[in-house]
Amino acid sequence: MRRYALPPFAASSINRVAWIVLAVLFLAAATVRADSGQAPKYVFLFIGDGMALAQRSAAEYFLAAKEGKPGPGAVRLAMNRMPVQGLTATSSLNSIITDSGAAGTAIASGVKTYNGAIGVDGAKNPVPTLAEKARDKGMKVGIISSVSLDHATPACFYSHQASRNNYYEIALDAAKSGFDYFGGGGFKDPAGKKSKTDGEKPNALDAMRTAGYTVADTREAILAAKPGTKLVAVNPELDADKALPYALDADGGGDDKGLTLAQYTTKGIELLDNPKGFFLMVEGGKIDWACHANDAAASISDTLAFDAAVAEAVAFAKAHPDETLIVVTGDHECGGLTLGFAGTRYGNYYDYLKSQKDSFLRFAAALAEYKKTHDATTARFEDVAPLIKESFGLVVPTAADLEAMKAAPKPNEDNTSPADPHGLYFKEFELAAVKEAFGRSMQNEKEKPGNEMDYRAYGGYEPLAVTLTHILGNKAGIGWTSYSHTGVPVVTSAQGPGAQAFAGYYDNTDLSKKMAAALGETAVASN
Amino acid sequence: MRRYALPPFAASSINRVAWIVLAVLFLAAATVRADSGQAPKYVFLFIGDGMALAQRSAAEYFLAAKEGKPGPGAVRLAMNRMPVQGLTATSSLNSIITDSGAAGTAIASGVKTYNGAIGVDGAKNPVPTLAEKARDKGMKVGIISSVSLDHATPACFYSHQASRNNYYEIALDAAKSGFDYFGGGGFKDPAGKKSKTDGEKPNALDAMRTAGYTVADTREAILAAKPGTKLVAVNPELDADKALPYALDADGGGDDKGLTLAQYTTKGIELLDNPKGFFLMVEGGKIDWACHANDAAASISDTLAFDAAVAEAVAFAKAHPDETLIVVTGDHECGGLTLGFAGTRYGNYYDYLKSQKDSFLRFAAALAEYKKTHDATTARFEDVAPLIKESFGLVVPTAADLEAMKAAPKPNEDNTSPADPHGLYFKEFELAAVKEAFGRSMQNEKEKPGNEMDYRAYGGYEPLAVTLTHILGNKAGIGWTSYSHTGVPVVTSAQGPGAQAFAGYYDNTDLSKKMAAALGETAVASN
Repeated sequence: MRRYALPPFAASSINRVAWIVLAVLFLAAATVRADSGQAPKYVFLFIGDGMALAQRSAAEYFLAAKEGKPGPGAVRLAMNRMPVQGLTATSSLNSIITDSGAAGTAIASGVKTYNGAIGVDGAKNPVPTLAEKARDKGMKVGIISSVSLDHATPACFYSHQASRNNYYEIALDAAKSGFDYFGGGGFKDPAGKKSKTDGEKPNALDAMRTAGYTVADTREAILAAKPGTKLVAVNPELDADKALPYALDADGGGDDKGLTLAQYTTKGIELLDNPKGFFLMVEGGKIDWACHANDAAASISDTLAFDAAVAEAVAFAKAHPDETLIVVTGDHECGGLTLGFAGTRYGNYYDYLKSQKDSFLRFAAALAEYKKTHDATTARFEDVAPLIKESFGLVVPTAADLEAMKAAPKPNEDNTSPADPHGLYFKEFELAAVKEAFGRSMQNEKEKPGNEMDYRAYGGYEPLAVTLTHILGNKAGIGWTSYSHTGVPVVTSAQGPGAQAFAGYYDNTDLSKKMAAALGETAVASN
Repeated sequence: MRRYALPPFAASSINRVAWIVLAVLFLAAATVRADSGQAPKYVFLFIGDGMALAQRSAAEYFLAAKEGKPGPGAVRLAMNRMPVQGLTATSSLNSIITDSGAAGTAIASGVKTYNGAIGVDGAKNPVPTLAEKARDKGMKVGIISSVSLDHATPACFYSHQASRNNYYEIALDAAKSGFDYFGGGGFKDPAGKKSKTDGEKPNALDAMRTAGYTVADTREAILAAKPGTKLVAVNPELDADKALPYALDADGGGDDKGLTLAQYTTKGIELLDNPKGFFLMVEGGKIDWACHANDAAASISDTLAFDAAVAEAVAFAKAHPDETLIVVTGDHECGGLTLGFAGTRYGNYYDYLKSQKDSFLRFAAALAEYKKTHDATTARFEDVAPLIKESFGLVVPTAADLEAMKAAPKPNEDNTSPADPHGLYFKEFELAAVKEAFGRSMQNEKEKPGNEMDYRAYGGYEPLAVTLTHILGNKAGIGWTSYSHTGVPVVTSAQGPGAQAFAGYYDNTDLSKKMAAALGETAVASN
């Protein structure tokens, strides 16, 4: 069935030539669009810290279970729906396993450097960043993170320091950046550490104000900021590390509460949109922290919060499809997360994770309250069992429960049997581990063994909290192998003009070069 | 700088029209090539059973360590060098975690089915396979596996059975397939299980001979087969499951020894090459088995053997670049492999894996010899320590060694310190675990606990063997979380005409549909 016949060649020569010229133009346009795309005016770079394939899939499986859509592919994250998916290797200059400083420098500046570096190469020389290049081309620039704005990943886009621990100097670099928007967490050391030889140091937040920034730290002030304002938006709710709370712990937004990563992204778009375009980097930094602590539910909820921010960019791109490049990547895997566990064999029970109401961190804070009035001699496990149930849904079974559990059918290998109805009850050996961890939690610092077996069990975290996240994750069919980053490569997703360059398998320094090429095209196009 | 000026429009109208027609043809050709490629005449499908991203990266990191090229990206597997990389979800009809039957059916036939199915849908109806479609289009077809040829993955390309355990019926289906080449492992049940009601059953190998196949089971006979021969090549060296030995255990080829997966691939190319093209499926089946057993060195060596087979196809494609499509995928992850371990933090010591000379299976066989003359009362750990050293390089330290180990500097978090010189010595708590496992290995079947903690520790494997692979893997910085498959998606790599379709993130049933589309184009082109 041919709907459109070719114009007959018996027609006049003028008609013939006109038709052919039109065809050439059409094909040329189609070819350019397919091969190289158009230069993007709006560039989004999303970095899920510690987020690799397993983290993304865990969030998807959890969402499918939560929404009652267990079928294959019934639920897809915004980043997983992008047309281009690539693989990115993450080794640093001196290690298969990178830290966020070396990884951030690779992504921001395209150079391999040592773990701990911020925007400097292996010889500690500053290297220009994508964000600085965008600024120099006249684009507006925004930097968003759910952890402190002076943390390694965001810092790699505006700062140049030999060590990621130079928090004060990093904050001063932010004041000097000339960028247009910083949003999310706070600053860890704005006043600078005092030493005997130091004189009075300028406060970095004051330096930002002097440089023309409005520093806003209320929801009202942040939302009220108008385009044209150079804004430093510090979340009204911050944890002890000046980061946003875990998405799992966030109260979700009365007027006096914090903003989400998605809301910081929307605000960024509003502030940065201008005829010369913008570059906006958004980091989901607490995915990593949750993975360090082997807290599956916290990792998943922060991955979903990150994906919600990605979805804001995707919505913006719908209005500007030929002008918007979105790249989503991770800087490294963290925790050695995998989606299968010896104890559950071929079964998965992501439903169980819904019962976790608090992150390991909020649970540890509650336990710290208990420790204020109790020590190893007065602590009773019965005191904390209700807290465990409230935070994780895990239940200390009665003797009758234990008998019923023994009689319950085991899940079969085909996973066709339903999840064990007693699934959230502690098994006997789990309860033994929990009680041991509770004893360990109640020890004085001096009594703590600090040996390798202790580290393997608790990773330096609050022993009871990490034991509970391990048990709940295991019950769901999730396993962890480390409290550190790993060498498992990450996934990079992309859409929009220039996205095709992000297909294939490449190094994290190549990721930066591909983005620089895209920015270069933007610059040429906007000059 | 414009090198080619447009022909002036002042030229004659004839010239003008001719130029425009040429331009149209050129652009049309360029567009077709960029968008859809040419139809492939030669189609390779490589399936690494149990092989996901972590398995591929582990092999690459090991190879880099072995070859003394630790720099990022210095060593890349053939499959990781392919221009197109995609992500493939692996859930089955009834489970996030698939088995190889459901996964093989998804890949071969594009339908979601239940775990255990072979070439049938959820209602147990047969579904046509890619290999059958290729056969029906006049292409030659080959099926290669390093495990038995009636195992789930290869069977899914030629057989239709309600259960993967119907080995006899699967072998009969092979005889009826009309395919041109089967190579690799043997058949598990060619004679058929006898029951009281059964009469004499025809031997499946005889059925193959009757159907015109030459069944060859010596290296000489296999290598001597000429194009035109319908060949069933059964490896001269087989394990108890009728599979090739682990690449780690293979003696590597005198005249009386087995062939490698790469050699079966080369032979397949030789036998199948013909004017109508071919479809060749090659499975690296023992990657999965090594991962089930959490044996990192065996998994890596079989992944490298698989990649060597891929390299044969890549070499063939160099001679036929516009006609050869190569797709490399995994059917699911296995073992919950990750490339970081709590005990090694940010360090990796892949070098240590070089010291493993035997797979867990060959070590278990050696231990079984010891058990013939010893039981729990007469077994002495000192007897097996030399065997442990020989097979894994792991050393029981002397008291002086232990003192030296305590004094040795710990690897720092930046991984800039060299691997611990005592790295292959057992630490005290490792030695305790090894001795406990040895005791468990020497128990009678009746005494074995068979509870969940026992399963978590040993996964049903020979306790001492799996404890040793765990310890060596952990020392290298590798962790496992399961003895089963997991829900972590796999990577699909592709090159050649039609390869672009394999970019992005899609379901394993889509993988099949994309290949069917490519085969359809081939059929159209060759008709």
